[in-house]
Amino acid sequence: MQTQDIDYRADAVMRGYLAFDEAHVGRRPGVLVFHEGLGLGEFAMARARMLAEFGYVALAADMFGERRQARNLQEVADLVGGLRSEPETLRGRGHAALAALAALPEVDTSRIAAIGFCFGGSVVLELARDGADLKAAVSFHGVLTTRMPAVPGRVKASLLVLTGADDPLAPPEQVAAFEAEMRAAQVRDWQLVSYGSTLHGFTNPAADGSMLRSALYSAQADRRSWASMRSLFDEVL
Amino acid sequence: MQTQDIDYRADAVMRGYLAFDEAHVGRRPGVLVFHEGLGLGEFAMARARMLAEFGYVALAADMFGERRQARNLQEVADLVGGLRSEPETLRGRGHAALAALAALPEVDTSRIAAIGFCFGGSVVLELARDGADLKAAVSFHGVLTTRMPAVPGRVKASLLVLTGADDPLAPPEQVAAFEAEMRAAQVRDWQLVSYGSTLHGFTNPAADGSMLRSALYSAQADRRSWASMRSLFDEVL
Repeated sequence: MQTQDIDYRADAVMRGYLAFDEAHVGRRPGVLVFHEGLGLGEFAMARARMLAEFGYVALAADMFGERRQARNLQEVADLVGGLRSEPETLRGRGHAALAALAALPEVDTSRIAAIGFCFGGSVVLELARDGADLKAAVSFHGVLTTRMPAVPGRVKASLLVLTGADDPLAPPEQVAAFEAEMRAAQVRDWQLVSYGSTLHGFTNPAADGSMLRSALYSAQADRRSWASMRSLFDEVL
Repeated sequence: MQTQDIDYRADAVMRGYLAFDEAHVGRRPGVLVFHEGLGLGEFAMARARMLAEFGYVALAADMFGERRQARNLQEVADLVGGLRSEPETLRGRGHAALAALAALPEVDTSRIAAIGFCFGGSVVLELARDGADLKAAVSFHGVLTTRMPAVPGRVKASLLVLTGADDPLAPPEQVAAFEAEMRAAQVRDWQLVSYGSTLHGFTNPAADGSMLRSALYSAQADRRSWASMRSLFDEVL
């Protein structure tokens, strides 16, 4: 498998991470991976490699610029809060990652999906709301609120939202509001899976409640949510 | 494949329908199938045969007695309403079906699951709430309300609830109440999948809105929900 850093431009220089099987011949589907609030690190890179093993070209995007990392919760709050208060910038950076992936000669531009974790889940949903050319958009324990709700006719992606039923960052009222948003925008294809007895950050083995009390790894929800993503990709990619 | 009628006793004589692969040697998992409000008919029997093809012993239960069928919506309302107002009778009939399946020499009694459609989805959840020895309980477009909510420590089954986001028989408030019930009862393992742009009765090709306006087949939701059931069975059976 080939892995390499890849720089691309948005409102700053972004340093992504690319993974693909160099033995594969011909164009193949591409998948974007959007990182958690800590920044592009080993977790998202490992997911990109897992996707490359399935035969996709995977680009783990950089949403903070120059692969900046947050060192603590305050820095996470500053970086994520800054972008969430400027949804145009956030969406611009997401689109820039999509353009960088689509520009690769290995990628079939008609078959691109995006996945994201926590903050990255929000990015994926923002891209989909903005009409990005995605076949699928998958949010793992993402925040579901937005300053720019979906409007009828705009969302092209098949949406899959995977959320912990006890995640305080995506509480029941937020889930209900998201579903209402989807209905109001007459989104063609969306699914929401609620995992009982499951907290925030359930896909990340490093989530042990020490940094963020409400984040806790669940091997079961991790396995189930990844399988649901694969099923959707088998359908639409 | 072997199929046959099978009579068993509850508060009346129930006429179920059994399907299994007679070429299979040794005990194997059993799956109960609970029918819709129309009564045990071709739809539930076909699902039993599909389960038998996967290697399970499938019993399509009879919840109305002597395989009674409803001929119209009024009869559905009478039969279903009668049982829902007497949850002990409903649960008793469910337990009788479980006992009939468990008594078969082909069945590994430690690996039994139950699925149900519409009214049958409610039956499955009632059985699980009542502590039935089920590895999994799967509700397809079932009504989620109950007169006897789950209590801590009682539910043994892994629950999977598959519901149409636009199903007026399971509206958002009902879904929220169900999730709250699960949390309050500290149910160990439950998942709820909400399919966007999907109405009631999405698994049944005969659901075309003519008998019940809010019931409409969806090939996509049918396929996805069946795949989710299979994933859970692969995990726990």
